[in-house]
Amino acid sequence: MNSLIIIKIGGNVIDNPDVLKQFLTAFRGIPGHKILIHGGGKIATQVAEKLSIPTTMVEGRRITDQPMLDVVTMVYGGLVNKQIVAQLQAIGVDAIGLTGADANTVRSRKRAVGAIDYGFVGDIEEVNSGQIQYFIRQNLVPVFAPLTYERSGNLLNTNADTMASAIAVDTAIRNEVTLVYCFEKKGVLSDPENDDSVISALTPETYADYKNKGVINKGMIPKLDNAFRALEKGVKKVIICHANQVAEAVSGSGVGTVLQSTV
Amino acid sequence: MNSLIIIKIGGNVIDNPDVLKQFLTAFRGIPGHKILIHGGGKIATQVAEKLSIPTTMVEGRRITDQPMLDVVTMVYGGLVNKQIVAQLQAIGVDAIGLTGADANTVRSRKRAVGAIDYGFVGDIEEVNSGQIQYFIRQNLVPVFAPLTYERSGNLLNTNADTMASAIAVDTAIRNEVTLVYCFEKKGVLSDPENDDSVISALTPETYADYKNKGVINKGMIPKLDNAFRALEKGVKKVIICHANQVAEAVSGSGVGTVLQSTV
Repeated sequence: MNSLIIIKIGGNVIDNPDVLKQFLTAFRGIPGHKILIHGGGKIATQVAEKLSIPTTMVEGRRITDQPMLDVVTMVYGGLVNKQIVAQLQAIGVDAIGLTGADANTVRSRKRAVGAIDYGFVGDIEEVNSGQIQYFIRQNLVPVFAPLTYERSGNLLNTNADTMASAIAVDTAIRNEVTLVYCFEKKGVLSDPENDDSVISALTPETYADYKNKGVINKGMIPKLDNAFRALEKGVKKVIICHANQVAEAVSGSGVGTVLQSTV
Repeated sequence: MNSLIIIKIGGNVIDNPDVLKQFLTAFRGIPGHKILIHGGGKIATQVAEKLSIPTTMVEGRRITDQPMLDVVTMVYGGLVNKQIVAQLQAIGVDAIGLTGADANTVRSRKRAVGAIDYGFVGDIEEVNSGQIQYFIRQNLVPVFAPLTYERSGNLLNTNADTMASAIAVDTAIRNEVTLVYCFEKKGVLSDPENDDSVISALTPETYADYKNKGVINKGMIPKLDNAFRALEKGVKKVIICHANQVAEAVSGSGVGTVLQSTV
């Protein structure tokens, strides 16, 4: 099987042009087939504010009503995605910007209204990995914005971490997939106060142990649960690292936190 | 050679959701390989106004400074393009939204600063018709936003009519191309006061004759000059028609104005 590297970057990379440029240069240096998935960043909030579109938060979560969906479609699908693609092209990476609607790559379902109506938020139903595989075979580098769509034709705001893991799981049928979550720390920390206390490797057993001891903090748990599920479903390796160490992390030089399945 | 239909729609279609929906349904009905190119519409101006970004006009032309480039990237590349793609997917058309930066499909050069500095406006240098052909062979339907990019990585605002004709000319190497310009009239009119006075066919000779007599008005001349140049460069047929007659026009039922080369 061919190896495929899937990398997710978040707001901390996107919001700073210099950091983004540095990341994209490192990304170029990673050999072989690869996919980039970007989150939203602060620009959507800034644009919404300038457009006087109120941000509605319920229980700490942002609600995507129709005006906010238009903003994220503009900012994630347009501004952020196309700027990344154009910058990658400029350094010789043949990138293609996609939302889940493009070539029907990721279809989702509008989240059911329960206690909270999240609005136009999508839960992924189907990844068209055959189509994604065609792009990869053409030596194109897909760059996904965190937007999917539902059968009725609505675009849907979609969590970028979840989108990355769904794409990783589905492409793992045909590839040996490494999924990399870049974030603002050097990896999963054993001491939240010490940025150098990176846990170099996690298995389901050691993860359970760290959780029981309260070492791994609350915010990391959904990300890690998600990552271990991806491993169970066929993804070969998950790495959690700082964006500026992505090339070293992928090359296996021991930076970041490497998650491995015991299966 | 396979036939390929390339259709350009403008603001009059994009700005009205019902008109757009009707157009997309007609577009679905057109058999064979096809490409859609959309213009900008009024939404960019509205968003710029709401963001307090001043529209600078010099000699009747809009200047694309950096803030305005961000707006058109958001609106054309994000909002308009992705809404069209999602709506096409919903009715079973496997659309893929593209700017010229995506998969390096259309590269341009920032217009040289002469008497007027147009800002981030691109003049097309190269269409990657091999890549476009690959999408078409995959039975994907490319949907282009009027944005290209230059080697240095800047996105560039690009005239949608010109983009349509450049793509038509370049794909004509491998396909029998029909280029369709949809606009708000039923075709080229012999009497601007009478919407039914459609000139059914134009050749370079009859076009020259109409121009000499002052029958064809000033606004149509750049569009028609552009269209005749596309015919000279290998495009098989150019049709100018109303958006809601596109299916009939393409099927050759005699609506709209058909331009034919005498070569």
